[in-house]
Amino acid sequence: MTSPRERYRAQVRAEVKEHAWAQIAEAGASAISLNAIAKTMGMSGPALYRYFANRDELITDLVSDAYRQLVDASRAAVAERGSDPAVIANAIRDWAHTYPQRYFLIYGTPIPGYHAPSTTTEIATQLMDLLLDALKDREPGPAMALDENLARHREWAHVDVPESVLRQALGFWTRLHGVVSLEISGHFRDMGFDTQLLFEAEMAASLGR
Amino acid sequence: MTSPRERYRAQVRAEVKEHAWAQIAEAGASAISLNAIAKTMGMSGPALYRYFANRDELITDLVSDAYRQLVDASRAAVAERGSDPAVIANAIRDWAHTYPQRYFLIYGTPIPGYHAPSTTTEIATQLMDLLLDALKDREPGPAMALDENLARHREWAHVDVPESVLRQALGFWTRLHGVVSLEISGHFRDMGFDTQLLFEAEMAASLGR
Repeated sequence: MTSPRERYRAQVRAEVKEHAWAQIAEAGASAISLNAIAKTMGMSGPALYRYFANRDELITDLVSDAYRQLVDASRAAVAERGSDPAVIANAIRDWAHTYPQRYFLIYGTPIPGYHAPSTTTEIATQLMDLLLDALKDREPGPAMALDENLARHREWAHVDVPESVLRQALGFWTRLHGVVSLEISGHFRDMGFDTQLLFEAEMAASLGR
Repeated sequence: MTSPRERYRAQVRAEVKEHAWAQIAEAGASAISLNAIAKTMGMSGPALYRYFANRDELITDLVSDAYRQLVDASRAAVAERGSDPAVIANAIRDWAHTYPQRYFLIYGTPIPGYHAPSTTTEIATQLMDLLLDALKDREPGPAMALDENLARHREWAHVDVPESVLRQALGFWTRLHGVVSLEISGHFRDMGFDTQLLFEAEMAASLGR
């Protein structure tokens, strides 16, 4: 049971983050200003800084929220339709279309001066683990020169999987990001083809289907 | 022969753009401010607006410069090492590593409120044509469901190539972007593997090698 004081604190922090998302929508993530948010909320700057020590702490919270939401959406899709990489890929793409700003906050242009702490990396790992879990029981893809290299660094995978699966997960992730990020940033707009088909073809090719 | 007046104008515009790149490096593309640049250059706002009518015109010029530089780098690589998709891919990746901010200005998070005019699309087409030209004499990749769809929209390709080549170019481009953008934004940092190997494996797979 949380105290009224804690609930109030959570409420203010949530409200600050709403304003931050509005700033991102209007002027980009690098335009986030705690002082401007304080003004909008009728608080003094120093009063707001009791809730977020600085801009970077606020950004980290936004990134973590976005990651968590993405992981939840992917997990819900897996729970409903099974542990299949295509299910996860579609869940990520759907989420990116619904929340392009959140997708870009995680995977887009880095914010000058901001460095994500290891806490966000941990949430990113949950998403990778979900993908590795879906890939590990499948027919392995073609062997890749990268394997030997990955073997030395596989501590980033929490799930115990062969190197070929790690390699496949990396290819799957980068292809997914390649299509989805160019799609939601409008780079295919003048090309007129059905981006859904490109996405499906890329995901299928990545799985050796 | 340009007049002294025209040369002066070109000089001022170039200087404005230098300041804009500095603003992008410091606070992101959405933080570009013509008034702040005017102040730095010791000019009045209205005086500066004679060189760039508004923020969007300045951004378009930056995007066009970046695209042109990328096209030039790719063309130079082709001139030196031949019309090979891998040569173009490496030229793009090298350029992205040297100028990550320029790469992201073109392919990264969209700037809120900014819409690229068709002039930038034309330069983008030059890069695509260079890639299509390198792909067109190769063994065609596997047929894709996308082909039928592309056939209806192939006016975006200025080079006369079969649909299978258009499809391969799209896959090549999105995979390239997937690896390069995650690489230069630091998403592979904690994973410790050699990103060059991932890049090469993805490019080779995309060419059916």
